[in-house]
Amino acid sequence: MPDTTPRPLGVALIGYAFMGRAHSQAWRTVPAAFDVPETARKVIVGRDEQAVAEAARRLDWEEHATDWREVIARDDIDIVDICTPGFLHAEIAIAALEAGKHVLCEKPLANDTAEAEAMVEAARAATARGQVAALGFTYRRVPALALAKQFVDAGRLGTIRQAKAAYLQDWLVDAQAPMSWRLRKETAGSGALGDIGSHAIDQIQHLTGQQVRAVRGRLATMVPERPGDDGPEPVTVDDAAWANLELDGGAIASVEVSRMATGAKNSLRIELFGSEGALRFDLENPNELWFLDATAPVAEQGYSRVLVTEPEHPYLEAWWPQGHVLGWENAFTHQARDLLLAIRDGDEHRFSPDFAEGLALQRVLDAIIDSDAADGITITL
Amino acid sequence: MPDTTPRPLGVALIGYAFMGRAHSQAWRTVPAAFDVPETARKVIVGRDEQAVAEAARRLDWEEHATDWREVIARDDIDIVDICTPGFLHAEIAIAALEAGKHVLCEKPLANDTAEAEAMVEAARAATARGQVAALGFTYRRVPALALAKQFVDAGRLGTIRQAKAAYLQDWLVDAQAPMSWRLRKETAGSGALGDIGSHAIDQIQHLTGQQVRAVRGRLATMVPERPGDDGPEPVTVDDAAWANLELDGGAIASVEVSRMATGAKNSLRIELFGSEGALRFDLENPNELWFLDATAPVAEQGYSRVLVTEPEHPYLEAWWPQGHVLGWENAFTHQARDLLLAIRDGDEHRFSPDFAEGLALQRVLDAIIDSDAADGITITL
Amino acid sequence: MPDTTPRPLGVALIGYAFMGRAHSQAWRTVPAAFDVPETARKVIVGRDEQAVAEAARRLDWEEHATDWREVIARDDIDIVDICTPGFLHAEIAIAALEAGKHVLCEKPLANDTAEAEAMVEAARAATARGQVAALGFTYRRVPALALAKQFVDAGRLGTIRQAKAAYLQDWLVDAQAPMSWRLRKETAGSGALGDIGSHAIDQIQHLTGQQVRAVRGRLATMVPERPGDDGPEPVTVDDAAWANLELDGGAIASVEVSRMATGAKNSLRIELFGSEGALRFDLENPNELWFLDATAPVAEQGYSRVLVTEPEHPYLEAWWPQGHVLGWENAFTHQARDLLLAIRDGDEHRFSPDFAEGLALQRVLDAIIDSDAADGITITL
Amino acid sequence: MPDTTPRPLGVALIGYAFMGRAHSQAWRTVPAAFDVPETARKVIVGRDEQAVAEAARRLDWEEHATDWREVIARDDIDIVDICTPGFLHAEIAIAALEAGKHVLCEKPLANDTAEAEAMVEAARAATARGQVAALGFTYRRVPALALAKQFVDAGRLGTIRQAKAAYLQDWLVDAQAPMSWRLRKETAGSGALGDIGSHAIDQIQHLTGQQVRAVRGRLATMVPERPGDDGPEPVTVDDAAWANLELDGGAIASVEVSRMATGAKNSLRIELFGSEGALRFDLENPNELWFLDATAPVAEQGYSRVLVTEPEHPYLEAWWPQGHVLGWENAFTHQARDLLLAIRDGDEHRFSPDFAEGLALQRVLDAIIDSDAADGITITL
Repeated sequence: MPDTTPRPLGVALIGYAFMGRAHSQAWRTVPAAFDVPETARKVIVGRDEQAVAEAARRLDWEEHATDWREVIARDDIDIVDICTPGFLHAEIAIAALEAGKHVLCEKPLANDTAEAEAMVEAARAATARGQVAALGFTYRRVPALALAKQFVDAGRLGTIRQAKAAYLQDWLVDAQAPMSWRLRKETAGSGALGDIGSHAIDQIQHLTGQQVRAVRGRLATMVPERPGDDGPEPVTVDDAAWANLELDGGAIASVEVSRMATGAKNSLRIELFGSEGALRFDLENPNELWFLDATAPVAEQGYSRVLVTEPEHPYLEAWWPQGHVLGWENAFTHQARDLLLAIRDGDEHRFSPDFAEGLALQRVLDAIIDSDAADGITITL
Repeated sequence: MPDTTPRPLGVALIGYAFMGRAHSQAWRTVPAAFDVPETARKVIVGRDEQAVAEAARRLDWEEHATDWREVIARDDIDIVDICTPGFLHAEIAIAALEAGKHVLCEKPLANDTAEAEAMVEAARAATARGQVAALGFTYRRVPALALAKQFVDAGRLGTIRQAKAAYLQDWLVDAQAPMSWRLRKETAGSGALGDIGSHAIDQIQHLTGQQVRAVRGRLATMVPERPGDDGPEPVTVDDAAWANLELDGGAIASVEVSRMATGAKNSLRIELFGSEGALRFDLENPNELWFLDATAPVAEQGYSRVLVTEPEHPYLEAWWPQGHVLGWENAFTHQARDLLLAIRDGDEHRFSPDFAEGLALQRVLDAIIDSDAADGITITL
Repeated sequence: MPDTTPRPLGVALIGYAFMGRAHSQAWRTVPAAFDVPETARKVIVGRDEQAVAEAARRLDWEEHATDWREVIARDDIDIVDICTPGFLHAEIAIAALEAGKHVLCEKPLANDTAEAEAMVEAARAATARGQVAALGFTYRRVPALALAKQFVDAGRLGTIRQAKAAYLQDWLVDAQAPMSWRLRKETAGSGALGDIGSHAIDQIQHLTGQQVRAVRGRLATMVPERPGDDGPEPVTVDDAAWANLELDGGAIASVEVSRMATGAKNSLRIELFGSEGALRFDLENPNELWFLDATAPVAEQGYSRVLVTEPEHPYLEAWWPQGHVLGWENAFTHQARDLLLAIRDGDEHRFSPDFAEGLALQRVLDAIIDSDAADGITITL
Repeated sequence: MPDTTPRPLGVALIGYAFMGRAHSQAWRTVPAAFDVPETARKVIVGRDEQAVAEAARRLDWEEHATDWREVIARDDIDIVDICTPGFLHAEIAIAALEAGKHVLCEKPLANDTAEAEAMVEAARAATARGQVAALGFTYRRVPALALAKQFVDAGRLGTIRQAKAAYLQDWLVDAQAPMSWRLRKETAGSGALGDIGSHAIDQIQHLTGQQVRAVRGRLATMVPERPGDDGPEPVTVDDAAWANLELDGGAIASVEVSRMATGAKNSLRIELFGSEGALRFDLENPNELWFLDATAPVAEQGYSRVLVTEPEHPYLEAWWPQGHVLGWENAFTHQARDLLLAIRDGDEHRFSPDFAEGLALQRVLDAIIDSDAADGITITL
C-alpha cells in the first residue's frame, strides 16, 4: 500500500537580500505560530554561489542553487517565492506558474504594464488549475491595518468621503548620498512612487473598498544629480510624488510619498474620514490603530488608541499575551499563513491581492506618471 | 425714592505678582465670557507703592493702595481676593471675613494648621451670614479636569481602585541656581509638597470623591545647599516628595512631586483606574482628556483623546468654536465665574473647595511630613 | 502751555461676532502683558443696535455705534479694527485708510481680487503717510509658529525642499447640517479653501520664506446639497480642497483642507522638510513645536517636542512661568502688540502681513480655483 | 586524524509554555540575525508527553523529553535554557550547572532567597570552570533600553537624582476573573511585585548603575477573593505594589506596579531625571526612546523621540533597514546572541544579569515586602 501521508509543501525562495531575509523569517516562523499545512524550506536561489550558500546556512534552507529554472522544474517544489528585483518578476513568475507551482511574488508586480499583463494571463490560467498566485503587499497583514479593514467593512466609518495617505522616508536627504541602481530608471523602473507610493495606494483601495477611477499627479526629483563612479550622474527616478485620486465610491484621496522627508524613517500614514467614523495609522507605531466613533456622544468623542495586541484582533491569537507588541517582520509570517491557507482551502481563503489587483494598481501608477507628464491634467482609468 | 439698582460688586485684589496678574486677567475677562453679576475692579493692594501703582495701571484697576486693612474697611469693597504669600493668608482672610466681605484665597490655605483652623472658624461664621469663603485650587476649573469629574460622577469609571498623580517641574535642576525665599522653610512653609503636591492631592480627593484616611510619605532635598548672598546656604524645604495614600472609598493613590524632574515644565499628570473605565490627564496638554471605556468591546477599546473644546464641555460654551483651545489662564476666569455665581445664588452654586477642604488637605500634607519624619510609617488621619 | 502728554490711541472695532470677541479680548489684555503705547477702547460698531450695545457692555468698550462711517470720521479714533464679513473689508478699510487711520483687517483681505487690489492701492498711499495697514493672519503670532520661523531663518533646516500643510475641521460631516450663508458662494466668497486654506498657504510662504510661483489644484463639494428653508439647496462652495505648490526657492508644498475631516477639530498641521532639519506643528496642540536637527548624531536624532513656554521663546516673556501654556486667543494679543509697536516704531517693527501680501495670497487661491476649473493643469503666477 | 570541527552547541529547553515559545523563537532566529556560534535545538522538555511532542514539532526541536534530569546528563547538551515556573528554577539550574552545562534561567531567579543563594553558589563554582550562568531579564536587550544605558554611561544625563518606574497591566480588572495558581502564594511565590515589579527594579538599578540600599514599600490586594472551583477563594498575592527606593549613588526612585491598571496592557514606563539630561520609555512603544539634553539651548530643548531602528543603535545592524520596527519578541533573540557570545568569548562578553544580580534583586523585593509588613518603615539592605 502506498504511503498516503501528504509530504510537506516544498518551498523555493528566489532572492536572498532584504526581502529574502524577511520571507525566510516568515517561513521559519509560520508553523510555530499558526495551524497551517506543513512546509519544507527546500532551496534558496541566487546568482552568486558563495553568497547564496552562506544565505542557505544562515537562513536555514536545506539547499542552495544558482539556476532558478532548474529549481522550478523540480517535483519537490510546490511554492515559488519570488524576492528578486522587479525586472525579473515576470519571467520567473510566469515560468513557475506554467510549471504548476503556487507563486508568491513580491511587489511591485512588474516593472511595466506589458509584463504585468502577461503575468495576469499566466495567473488566470494557473488559478483555473487550482494554483495560487499571490502578490506581496505585506502591509495588508499588519494587524492594525487588518483591523482597520474590519472596521470599515462593519460600516463603522459610514460613507468614506476623504482619505489621506503619505509614505515618508528620509534616506535620500543627504544630497551627497551616492548614485545607485535604485536611482536609475532603467534598473529601478520607478522611484518613490513605485516603491512606496504603491503601498499607499494599495491601502487606500483596499481599506476603502473603492477603486481609483481618475488621477492627477506630480513627480519631482529634488536632488537631480548625485555622485557616481565617474563624477556627477543624473537621477532619473522621482524622489517624491503627489497624487489626487477619485475613487469609484465617491471618495477623494490624497497621496504623498517621499524619500526626502527629513526625520521620517518608514512612516506610512493613513487617515480615513467617513460620515460616521474615522481611522488613523502610522507604520512607525504599527501596533496602534486610532479609531473615532462619530456616533458617540460629543462630550466623549475622540480618537481612541487601540493597541492591537488582543486575542480578538486579527492574527494576534497566534502570538503573545495582550500588550506584547509585534514588529514589522511579523506581517510576513501572516502573509505566509494566508498563502498556505489559500493553497489548502481554495476560495474559502482566497488570497488577496492577486496579480490582477497588482496590474490594476500598476495602471494607477502609470496614470499618475502620465498626468504629471501632461502638466497635471486628470487621467481617467 | 432710593436707587435700587444694584451697584457692581467691588473687588479688591491683595497682591500683584504672578497670581495677582492671573487673577486680574480673570476679573477683566469674566464679564465678557459669562453671565455673571457685574463687578468693578476697585483697588489693587501691595506694599511697594510705586510697584503697585504701576500694577494698577497695567492690570486695569481703578485705584491702588498699600494698606490692606484700610481697603477691607471700605464700604465699596464686596470681594477680597487674596494673592499674597501664604503666611499672610490667615490674617487678611479672617479680617476680611469679619468685615463682612466675600473672600477668595489663593492656595495653600495657610502655612500651618493652627492658622488654617482659625480661618475655617472665621469662614464658618461668615458663611452663616451668607458670605462666601472660597479657596483657589484653580485646576479644578480646567475644563478637562471638570469633565473628568463629570465622568467619575456619572459612574463611567465604576469603582476607582487605583490613582496616580505626579506634579513634575524642573526649575531647580541647576544645582547652582541661587538660594531664594522659596527654599527657606521659615518663609515658604514648605517646598514641592506644599506648593504643587497640594494640587495633586486635591485633584485625587476631588476627582475620586474619596478622602485620604492614611498616608505614608517621603520628602527629599536633592540639592542640600545653594549659593546664597554670603556663600553656600542650606535648603530647608523639600525638592521632591512621594506619598502613598489610602482613600476612604478603598482606593490607593500614589503621589510624586518634584522640582528636579528634568524636562518637565508644569506636568501635573493624573491617572485614575476604575473597574469600568480609566482617565488620564497632563496639564502640559490641558485641553486633552484621555478616557477609556472598559465596557466597550475589547477589539475597539483604547484611550480616547477627547479634545475638550466642545460647547457640551464644562465652561466651553463661553469661549470659541470647537477646536480652539484654551490656555492655563482661562481656569482663573472660570474660578471668578463660579465665585460670582456662588455669591449670587448661594447653595445652588456652592463654591468648592471651601476653607474646610483646605484645612483637610493641610492635614494630609502634615501627615505626609510626619510619616517621613517617622521613617515612613503609616499616619492615620 | 498746552498739555503735550500723548493721549491714548483710540480704537474702533467694527464687528462684534466671533472675531470681534477675540479682538476685544486682545485689546483688553495687551496693556497688561506688553509694553505698548496706551490705547482706549473707544467704540464698537455693528448694525444691530441692541446687540452691539450689549457687546459694548460685555466686551468693555466705552461706546457703541451703528454707522461705521461716522466712527471713521471721528478725531479720537486712531485705529480701525475690521472684523466684519469679508465682503465689507474693502469698503471700510479703504475709507479708514483715506481718513488717516491705522487699519487692522481680518483675513481674508477681500472676497475678490479686484477689491484686494484697490485695498493694496489705498494701503500704499497710507503707508507713505506713515499709517499702518495690517492683515490679521493671526496664526503667525502663535509662539510655536513664530519660533518655527526663527529656526528657519537661522538656517536650522538648511534648504527646505518639501512642505506639507493641512487644515482639517469636521463641522460639516453631518450631511443634514443645514444650509447657511457660509455655504453660498455669493455671501461667503469661497469655502474651505478661502477660509482655512488661506491660513495653510500663508504659513507655507511665511515659514519657508518662499513664494508660490505655480499651482495645481482641486476643489470638491462632498455634500452637494443641504437642507435649506425651502427644501434642499445646493452648496456652492468647496467642502475640501487640495493643492500642489511650486515655491520660488525650489520647494514643493502640498496643501489639503477640509471641513469634512471627521475627528479633526481645528487641526492646522504643518511639516517642513529641509536638508539639515525638519519641523512639525499642529494647532490642536499649539504650545508644542517639534524640531528635528538632522545634523545631530544619528543615534540620538529625533523630533524634539519643544514646549514653547520659556521666556526665551517669542512673546512668552510677557506671560506666565515656564510650562504654563497659552491658548488660541493669546495670539490675538500678540497681534495687537505688534500692531501697536509698528504704529510707534515704523519700519523698525514693520507689521507683516500687509495688504500686498494678502493680495498675493488671494492670487494663489484664485490660481488654485483656476487650475481645478482647467482639469488640474498647472497655473503659473 | 580526528575531526576537529567544533560541533554545534546543543541546546535543551525546559518548558514549552509562553516563555518556551518565546525562547524557541529566539533559538530559531539567532543564527539568521547574528554571527554567533552554531547551535542545535536538540530537545525540548515538559511533563506532558503529548503536549511536549506537539511543541517539539511546532517549535522545531529535534526531540522531546519528559525527564529533565536525563536531558541534563546528555553529552550532546551544552546549554540548558530554563523556562519552567519559578519554583523549579533552583533544582534544575543547580543540577545543570553541576553537570557542566551553561544555563539561561528565566526570571525570577527563584521563589525565595534561600533557593536563590544556593543558585548563586552553584553559579560561582560553575563560572570558575568557565560556564555561563545567565538570568533572563530580557528587557535589558530591548534596543531602546540598551540605548538608554549607553546614554547614561556616556554621561549624557549627568548625575541621576530621580527615577520613576511603573509596570502597569490590567488583566485582573474584572473582579469576576477566576482564581488561578498565579494568585496563590504557595504556587506563585508573589504577585505583581515579583512578576513585573522585578523588571521595573532591575531596570532602575541597571540603567542608573546605582544599587538599592534602602526601601519603603506597600502591597495591596484590591480584589481580595475571586471565584474558585468551590466558591469564593482568597487571593493571597498582591495585585499592586509601590516602593520608594534609595539608591547608593544618591538617587531616589519610585516604583509602582499593578495588574489592575485599567487600559494599560504591558506598560513598563521608565523615566530618569539627571542634572544634564533625562530619558523616558514605555514598553508599549518599545522602539521609541525619548531623550532630553538639558545642556542644549533652552529655546530648543525638549524630549526627542528617537526611533531606535538605525544601524547605529544596539542590536539593530542585524535586522531591517531604518524605520522597520522590532517587536517584543526580538529581545529574546538578542538575549540568545549575548549568551552565545559570552560562551564563546568569556569575560570579553560577560553576560549580565548573572545569578548574583538576581539574588540582589530578590533581596530588594523581600525588603519591600518586609517594609509593608512593618507598616511602611524603611528597610536597609
